[in-house]
Amino acid sequence: MTKPLDPQPNSDAPNPGIIFETLNLHQRSAALHAAIELDLFSAIARGHRTVEALTEHLKTDQRATRILCDFLVIAGFLTKDNETYGLPPVSAEFLDRASPKYVGSIAKFMNSPDLLEAFKDIAQVVRTGTTTLSRDGTTATEYAGWIEFARSMAPIMMPAAMFMADMATRERPGAVRVLDIAAGHGMFGVALARKNPQAAIVALDWAPVLEVARENAAAAGIEDRYTLLPGDAFEVDYGGPYDVVLVTNFLHHFDPATCEKGMRKIADALAPAGLVLTLEFVPDENRIEPPIGASFAFTMLGTTPKGDAYTFAEYDAMWQRVGLTKSRMVDVPNSGQRLIFTQR
Amino acid sequence: MTKPLDPQPNSDAPNPGIIFETLNLHQRSAALHAAIELDLFSAIARGHRTVEALTEHLKTDQRATRILCDFLVIAGFLTKDNETYGLPPVSAEFLDRASPKYVGSIAKFMNSPDLLEAFKDIAQVVRTGTTTLSRDGTTATEYAGWIEFARSMAPIMMPAAMFMADMATRERPGAVRVLDIAAGHGMFGVALARKNPQAAIVALDWAPVLEVARENAAAAGIEDRYTLLPGDAFEVDYGGPYDVVLVTNFLHHFDPATCEKGMRKIADALAPAGLVLTLEFVPDENRIEPPIGASFAFTMLGTTPKGDAYTFAEYDAMWQRVGLTKSRMVDVPNSGQRLIFTQR
Repeated sequence: MTKPLDPQPNSDAPNPGIIFETLNLHQRSAALHAAIELDLFSAIARGHRTVEALTEHLKTDQRATRILCDFLVIAGFLTKDNETYGLPPVSAEFLDRASPKYVGSIAKFMNSPDLLEAFKDIAQVVRTGTTTLSRDGTTATEYAGWIEFARSMAPIMMPAAMFMADMATRERPGAVRVLDIAAGHGMFGVALARKNPQAAIVALDWAPVLEVARENAAAAGIEDRYTLLPGDAFEVDYGGPYDVVLVTNFLHHFDPATCEKGMRKIADALAPAGLVLTLEFVPDENRIEPPIGASFAFTMLGTTPKGDAYTFAEYDAMWQRVGLTKSRMVDVPNSGQRLIFTQR
Repeated sequence: MTKPLDPQPNSDAPNPGIIFETLNLHQRSAALHAAIELDLFSAIARGHRTVEALTEHLKTDQRATRILCDFLVIAGFLTKDNETYGLPPVSAEFLDRASPKYVGSIAKFMNSPDLLEAFKDIAQVVRTGTTTLSRDGTTATEYAGWIEFARSMAPIMMPAAMFMADMATRERPGAVRVLDIAAGHGMFGVALARKNPQAAIVALDWAPVLEVARENAAAAGIEDRYTLLPGDAFEVDYGGPYDVVLVTNFLHHFDPATCEKGMRKIADALAPAGLVLTLEFVPDENRIEPPIGASFAFTMLGTTPKGDAYTFAEYDAMWQRVGLTKSRMVDVPNSGQRLIFTQR
């Protein structure tokens, strides 16, 4: 029924469609967030596979449910066969609440009202060079969002946490004292403690966030080797010396001078043969690859006063300035992140 | 310097990265909007091609400018060669203010605070079945956003307007009376008047919006054949009879009963051999193709009480119910939209 009357005159000509589409991409974030909140993927997994069945099960509006589901097909999170919706592998594995790999909880932190607010006026951020969020954005002392972060982000960090636990145990086996800086959900230290039964973990974070880490340590059955160190990572006495220090998704929030202040404290608390493991979004020197690492700088632009995604050369130079001269980096499999190994 | 220690264990396994990326897509809309607002593309076109040069020219922050530019490379709107940024064809043609095809103004309407607000709680929209915007969203009487729309969206509609003018003139040449329903910027009627020197246009919209259409008609030198009909499209007397009626991006805002109310008024005002041209986002019967048409329903979900992207079969049935029995549809070249021809 549909056919072009005219052949497209200059089909190689640039098409402004990508501009229109990009300005609308915020709608994709909103659709996925809503579907997770409504638990739509679990409903489809349980066999509610038509608009009518979903509407009845979720107690939603029929037209709205149909529009949301079709949009999720376009976005790659549902399949559609005639009038029946299904789950592609990524949704079945990560968005069905019954799956052991469920990560839907990340939506609550990543698209929280605060974090969305941070991207409302990026032109102003680029003019002033700092977040439009009040005070220090997500780096404000005891920013409440980190409790939501700790509760919601653990699942998506599990592959990196397990990889890091393997690496730490391979490099520093046996009885080790481990400091987990800005532990958050605590899963990096907890994974290490599970992998190495002789590891003792000291988890540092603000007290209300550490409550979540403590719960996770208890759930993993390693609480007898798990110590809480509440406070500000730039102020509190680390104790030590430590054989392994975990610095996970922490340094990107700060400018280089602040990073070095923290790194100096870490170097001072490190045993002579100690190892620092830094897990980060690290772009290549061109800062445009890999896309997930490079684009993370934009998240820091919106949400922090002076944060960034630093390159390996930048991290290496910062560690050198605090006396840790040997750094090397590996990619974390199945993750957009990278792991930097640093020693004296 | 970077190499995986372990080969990826299940590289065909689903990767949750797309979930993380999709929840962050709102940042791409924000980045493009900011770059247009800062007129970054024009600055690069004028030769300010490094972070330092851009920062000085735009009076912006250096770190923030660098992060924005790198993110725009990742999103496809800039190129980067060593430390020098450039414009890919789509940006040079449509985002440089000096280009005759500049469409950057669309950002102001598409990412206006109102339209972003509409997507803040889609879960609630799906529960209730209607927009969370106050009153009737973008269909509220004299919604002020339509003035911004009229001022900003004309450029991106030009290819469709010229195609429609060609079609209308081919089908109904000579002295014709044309009614342009919800004229907005007026460019559909204006393009027709330029193509056919014997066409007389009656432009219907709310009075403040028609002011923009009047300006565009004057700029095109066709104001002697251009009459304003201010008012609500569902209430005002259309006059007539008309040889051609243009119904452009109007019906998608309403539920089928409201659409039919408007269509009946159009049918009553149409000359016996008259032609209705409906320009719309029209998804295929499966409602998931073409993506741009199908995803437009989601825009209507967020911003209107009961709007939708209707299929050709649905439009055809609605026109038949008001007595216009012959409809056919063509794709508009270089556009995600389609044009429906309807007659008695």
